[in-house]
Amino acid sequence: MTNSTRSFSIEELMNKETQFRAAFVNSLSGFKSVALIGSINKQNQANLAVFNSFVHIGANPPYIGFISRPDTVDRHTLSNILESGFYTINHIAEAFYKKAHQTSARYPQSVSEFEATGLQAEYKTDFLAPFVKESSIQLGITFKEQIKISSHSTIMVVGEISRVYFPSDCLCEDGFLDIEKAGSITGSGLDSYHTTTRLSRLSYAKPDQEVHVVNGKYGE
Amino acid sequence: MTNSTRSFSIEELMNKETQFRAAFVNSLSGFKSVALIGSINKQNQANLAVFNSFVHIGANPPYIGFISRPDTVDRHTLSNILESGFYTINHIAEAFYKKAHQTSARYPQSVSEFEATGLQAEYKTDFLAPFVKESSIQLGITFKEQIKISSHSTIMVVGEISRVYFPSDCLCEDGFLDIEKAGSITGSGLDSYHTTTRLSRLSYAKPDQEVHVVNGKYGE
Repeated sequence: MTNSTRSFSIEELMNKETQFRAAFVNSLSGFKSVALIGSINKQNQANLAVFNSFVHIGANPPYIGFISRPDTVDRHTLSNILESGFYTINHIAEAFYKKAHQTSARYPQSVSEFEATGLQAEYKTDFLAPFVKESSIQLGITFKEQIKISSHSTIMVVGEISRVYFPSDCLCEDGFLDIEKAGSITGSGLDSYHTTTRLSRLSYAKPDQEVHVVNGKYGE
Repeated sequence: MTNSTRSFSIEELMNKETQFRAAFVNSLSGFKSVALIGSINKQNQANLAVFNSFVHIGANPPYIGFISRPDTVDRHTLSNILESGFYTINHIAEAFYKKAHQTSARYPQSVSEFEATGLQAEYKTDFLAPFVKESSIQLGITFKEQIKISSHSTIMVVGEISRVYFPSDCLCEDGFLDIEKAGSITGSGLDSYHTTTRLSRLSYAKPDQEVHVVNGKYGE
């Protein structure tokens, strides 16, 4: 830490203007997953919305979560998920990140963000919710539970990864999927998008030896 | 999507070997926040552990969550947090990401990961838990609640950001904190670390106009 370090206490943060505080606090959790959630309601209206709050829950069985706010534009996504029980999670690449961000506009329920942004809905056999055709990594999710965070007006939505589509040349022998090679990008704050450059993969850490670089071989 | 797309169903995933499935499913949630959690127990033993599952909960009040598995090496962190009520979250930079990864080794409770890795504990006035001196962005957190994810043997730990330290030249007028400029890195899968390159910040999306690039001015 240098002399140019600055700090905010929670009291100082709470005295900031709402939008300043939202932009600042959203930056603090570090780089974020960014992906598009595709959903559909009983009237077959497709919805698409960008989220930046995905979290790995566990691999056995394969579960993934995301945070939804009940009082925001996300609500079409949440209500569709609760209605149909299925949704998709689609990674975002540099080629269409502006269209992805555009889905966060408050379109009326009657407007599909697919049509509004020009992103293409892709329906696959035996899966109700629409995927994003432009995405190189696509997950089909079965809703499992919503968990209310009692200390905050926020909900975590938990789902099971029931199928996944990915570029075959991005899979390593050990199961690692190279999402950087697949073109997936990351986000920070509310509105910043970033490509990545791998430093390295590191070995499984053990107490009696230093970690070393692992070069995963592609191909299963 | 090209002809080289491949897919796994959940049945295929569940038939994979445990470590393959863990590596694969951990890759699917996209790029991850990576940060070090500093904690301390009643005997004043400091603990440091890398986590890659932080999620923004909300800004008003400022809450942050992370996923912990009750049955893994994380448990010293979790038990310390429940015991003391305080912990720290410290962003990771390229200069020390290997030391950060090394904290995931299963050291016995009596060993401090600070000493084992050479990362420096930094104690600040009126805050019980140790910060990581090498981190340019440091959060002091007050524990709020643990939430059991009933469909999985996993816990989400929710805390309030009671103070934050950051490089003063990384703050923008609108509250955006430029964590890329601060040197924070991102992760993917279980063991991959990446630097980032900003594409752009984008404007608040509205239905009747296309999003455009925002150039945030530094300095509050």
